[in-house]
Amino acid sequence: MAAAYVALVHGPVVNKHGAPITTAVTGLNVHDIARTVATYGARRYYLVTPLEAQRRLVTRITAHWREGHGAAYNTTRRDALALVHVAATLDDAVADIAAREGQPPRLVATSARRPDGVAPVSYLRLREALKAGGPPVLLVFGTGWGLAPEALGRADALLPPIHGPGPYNHLAVRAAVAVVLDRLLGEDDPGPGA
Amino acid sequence: MAAAYVALVHGPVVNKHGAPITTAVTGLNVHDIARTVATYGARRYYLVTPLEAQRRLVTRITAHWREGHGAAYNTTRRDALALVHVAATLDDAVADIAAREGQPPRLVATSARRPDGVAPVSYLRLREALKAGGPPVLLVFGTGWGLAPEALGRADALLPPIHGPGPYNHLAVRAAVAVVLDRLLGEDDPGPGA
Repeated sequence: MAAAYVALVHGPVVNKHGAPITTAVTGLNVHDIARTVATYGARRYYLVTPLEAQRRLVTRITAHWREGHGAAYNTTRRDALALVHVAATLDDAVADIAAREGQPPRLVATSARRPDGVAPVSYLRLREALKAGGPPVLLVFGTGWGLAPEALGRADALLPPIHGPGPYNHLAVRAAVAVVLDRLLGEDDPGPGA
Repeated sequence: MAAAYVALVHGPVVNKHGAPITTAVTGLNVHDIARTVATYGARRYYLVTPLEAQRRLVTRITAHWREGHGAAYNTTRRDALALVHVAATLDDAVADIAAREGQPPRLVATSARRPDGVAPVSYLRLREALKAGGPPVLLVFGTGWGLAPEALGRADALLPPIHGPGPYNHLAVRAAVAVVLDRLLGEDDPGPGA
């Protein structure tokens, strides 16, 4: 099994008009996505933000649950938050993974739209590639209205938007991370009647 | 396609010691799950709580986004929150669905554990049953540490817990709803290379 990593990018992302912004870290995205990352066996979860004060905030939240009163109160939360790391840029996250794994990760971006210029990869093909081993994979998610072009341009491949039966696709990023990890790393369906 | 509905039960559920409790509604579970329900084409999303003040709170949140300033600011949020309804009990939600659909729904419960006494159904089999049409299905999720035995006892079938490759399975209920709806109602994978 290839090592999978998750990055949630707070900057550079775009706002609803496509202009570059930096979003605020929300505590909920720290907790929910850490629990999802732990459930699906991804190795680390990077909160990427250029703002140093925001990185300190994340470190304070995780310290409470990793070492403080929270660790004794809720051990499953502690285990999930142990996977949380901060990074100033996507490049810093990539460098951290390369140092741990001995090779740089393949960057796979996600988008609720279908931006041009990045090679598409299907969920099934990436699932099979992960199962077959090989280089680590960094799954990159954007906050706000999605990754800025410069972040998308760094990606080696792009997963298709998540759709149900209709045109509405406005999942919370927390929900999108869960669906993507389930599609890529969830256990195989045991089959009818199981 | 059979009509799918979602219920998030705040009481009766159990706490970490298995004792019956009623949990508080959190605004985030209103928003996130409404967006997931809209994305996957489920018909209605019931917040089930025996507390009248909590039901009024939900109605106030949804009114802001359905009619107030929020509706103009964020139309996709409005469309999602239009699917939100409150119910005092699971039976009230069942009665509402029966009145809309002309027949009562099949109740399918979810659990992070594997409680005894409810017939199991696999994701694949339920996905096929939904696709084949037939009676409506109400997917029932619990808050806290899960549905109380009396709520589980009402269910016609039980979906297996969501697992990744390891033993950790402590998804936020918001994430679990997204994964379950994707497994049951997500578009078919277009296949490798798509």
